[in-house]
Amino acid sequence: MHINALENRATLASFYRDTLLGDVIPFWLRHGLDREHGGFLTALDRDGTVIDTDKSIWFQGRGAWTFATLFNTVEKKSEWLDAARSGVEFLRRHGRGNCGKLYFTVTRLGQPLRMRRYVYSESFAAIANAAYARASGDAQAADDAVAFFDTYLSHSFDPGRMPSKVDSAIRPMMSIGPLMIGIATAQELRENLGDVVVKGQTFTVWIDWAIERIERFFLKPEYEAVLEVVGTNGEVIDHFDGRQLNPGHALEAAWFIMHEGNLRNDRRLLGVGLKILDWMWKRGWDEEYGGIFYFRDLRGLPVQEYWHDMKFWWPHCEAIIATLLAWTLTGDEKYARWHRQVHEWSFRHFPDPEFGEWFGYLHRDGRISTRLKGNMWKGPFHLPRMLWYCWKLLTKDPGKEEPSP
Amino acid sequence: MHINALENRATLASFYRDTLLGDVIPFWLRHGLDREHGGFLTALDRDGTVIDTDKSIWFQGRGAWTFATLFNTVEKKSEWLDAARSGVEFLRRHGRGNCGKLYFTVTRLGQPLRMRRYVYSESFAAIANAAYARASGDAQAADDAVAFFDTYLSHSFDPGRMPSKVDSAIRPMMSIGPLMIGIATAQELRENLGDVVVKGQTFTVWIDWAIERIERFFLKPEYEAVLEVVGTNGEVIDHFDGRQLNPGHALEAAWFIMHEGNLRNDRRLLGVGLKILDWMWKRGWDEEYGGIFYFRDLRGLPVQEYWHDMKFWWPHCEAIIATLLAWTLTGDEKYARWHRQVHEWSFRHFPDPEFGEWFGYLHRDGRISTRLKGNMWKGPFHLPRMLWYCWKLLTKDPGKEEPSP
Repeated sequence: MHINALENRATLASFYRDTLLGDVIPFWLRHGLDREHGGFLTALDRDGTVIDTDKSIWFQGRGAWTFATLFNTVEKKSEWLDAARSGVEFLRRHGRGNCGKLYFTVTRLGQPLRMRRYVYSESFAAIANAAYARASGDAQAADDAVAFFDTYLSHSFDPGRMPSKVDSAIRPMMSIGPLMIGIATAQELRENLGDVVVKGQTFTVWIDWAIERIERFFLKPEYEAVLEVVGTNGEVIDHFDGRQLNPGHALEAAWFIMHEGNLRNDRRLLGVGLKILDWMWKRGWDEEYGGIFYFRDLRGLPVQEYWHDMKFWWPHCEAIIATLLAWTLTGDEKYARWHRQVHEWSFRHFPDPEFGEWFGYLHRDGRISTRLKGNMWKGPFHLPRMLWYCWKLLTKDPGKEEPSP
Repeated sequence: MHINALENRATLASFYRDTLLGDVIPFWLRHGLDREHGGFLTALDRDGTVIDTDKSIWFQGRGAWTFATLFNTVEKKSEWLDAARSGVEFLRRHGRGNCGKLYFTVTRLGQPLRMRRYVYSESFAAIANAAYARASGDAQAADDAVAFFDTYLSHSFDPGRMPSKVDSAIRPMMSIGPLMIGIATAQELRENLGDVVVKGQTFTVWIDWAIERIERFFLKPEYEAVLEVVGTNGEVIDHFDGRQLNPGHALEAAWFIMHEGNLRNDRRLLGVGLKILDWMWKRGWDEEYGGIFYFRDLRGLPVQEYWHDMKFWWPHCEAIIATLLAWTLTGDEKYARWHRQVHEWSFRHFPDPEFGEWFGYLHRDGRISTRLKGNMWKGPFHLPRMLWYCWKLLTKDPGKEEPSP
């Protein structure tokens, strides 16, 4: 890496830090905190006006994680710790249904609205509590983090535990989602709580287990693609769902695995992450308009979901991290080029120069589809995580300790 | 109505007939019939290639209705009756789950894949069986039609029968969908079976009941809008879901009600339909690019669904019928102008000149988003129903007997 690239990395680091601390975090502190009833409000219009007071349980956890992590790794600011506490306490008071699982949405006051089959509320509550435990020294938060991860593992992986959408006797299927979120959750818990044993094995062993299953069942060298859903022996399910690729999701998995490879100085693991990045960049990058497609079909057939060619903010965040990490760890100019491509496209199209933060949903050609700043899926998570991770990565010597995902 | 308009109406009638009989119906007969295992295959690529063999239970009914109705009202073609029989028999053999409800999707061979909470599979099975009973004289089909409608009514309207997605103790809600599909289903059953009593009242009384509830709870003069979801006393639910307008859906309700007003020569009912058309045309028509928006917000706020500004084929079909029917019944030039607008926009953007039929999903500006010709929601229904209804409407004297929806 020559001087030019290094200078560029320093400029980039400042850019990510300034966007994080001067734009994105102030936006959410100003508009996204419920100072009356606690927790986070994420359904925001362009200027930050709350347009739906219902609360996402995902974002009570995700938001709390973001603010606790800033407190742990950037500066001991009390307003960050307060924001994290607000999310964690809202979860404690209102998150859990009678069945023990967390809700998906509740009212502003915390009355239950919707419970879903899957357990991502639990994975986000786990990382929130782990980061908050480190930030605050709260022992209950540390216990809760482990308990949420235990629930996450049981519901995701104990056979028959989660009701399936499609008859599992007729078409047994498994998804990559629970495995990759399992990796990131375990990484985050290990970072903040140490390598604790959950359901009989350490976080590190769970990470190995999940990566091995992803490699064995979801990576398809014959297609140079990572699948989202496969049969129980990794078979390609040649229907709409089985062929549907989600490049942003796969790029997110790629950097979780590269991150693990780097932490352990394990070149084989790094290679797995790079392979996913190489395959799915080609599948996802839109050569005509730029940006990352939402869905693609394994065999180039039409995708069933009509918004398949839209450009969402989060796959771009994941692609920026994956390419920057690959460049940092390999020095390969290809990754610097890809990083520049996706960084430039994203910062040209997503930011709102007037009110700050990013728009979330663009048409294929980059025009804004909706002026929403947040909803039940967009809140203080993907964008601040990207800015924070990239900033931290760029201010460390390559090959040294990484930020946790 | 002067000569010019009458001539125009004759040209339009031929255009709709020729498109129906020379393009759309041949496309589905050629590509959408499963000649090996029975029933309809709707997941088709642009050229008609089957790209997913899973079967929509909705479309076994909807397709059978289309072909039986052509047989009943156009010509006694055996291939149309065979197609209708194929759908009805597939439903008999494979449609029903152990709980007595119909599935949402099954495999090509009829093995169950997915059961959903709601009962639109039943409403479409009801109209299919009613039209097929008239076409074939099959007495079981007539009984089945009534039984499916009975199930539809119980699950849709008996309190507590259908599990709600959102906690009904915290946020009780009701949707316009079951009422408006109830109207169309009862109209179709009455047309083919006579005014039979189901669950204690005739089809006509059920229609009155549904229209009265729509007027009382879903029409909001203060907003000049028809809501999709309201509280149990018709309250506006000021959250994403409660504010979300679906202009195509409302225009469909408008023409069901105008059709009923015309059948009964009831000017008050006609007025209800016209009011919905007037309000929702203004909400739905895209002044910038033309065409009908998919979703709008009651208060002009951002809509949560990201595909909100796309142009789907079916709202355009409903708008073409509603405007043509309004013009026919009132002679008001405004409706002729609206009809011309939506007709021209639709036929400029949706048809595929190379392989026939319509594309289903366009971007806001009319560019094609996917080359799909069908999937679990698009098949031989909205487009052929529009072409058939408009053709029949244009070849009758205004004010006389209408085609059934």
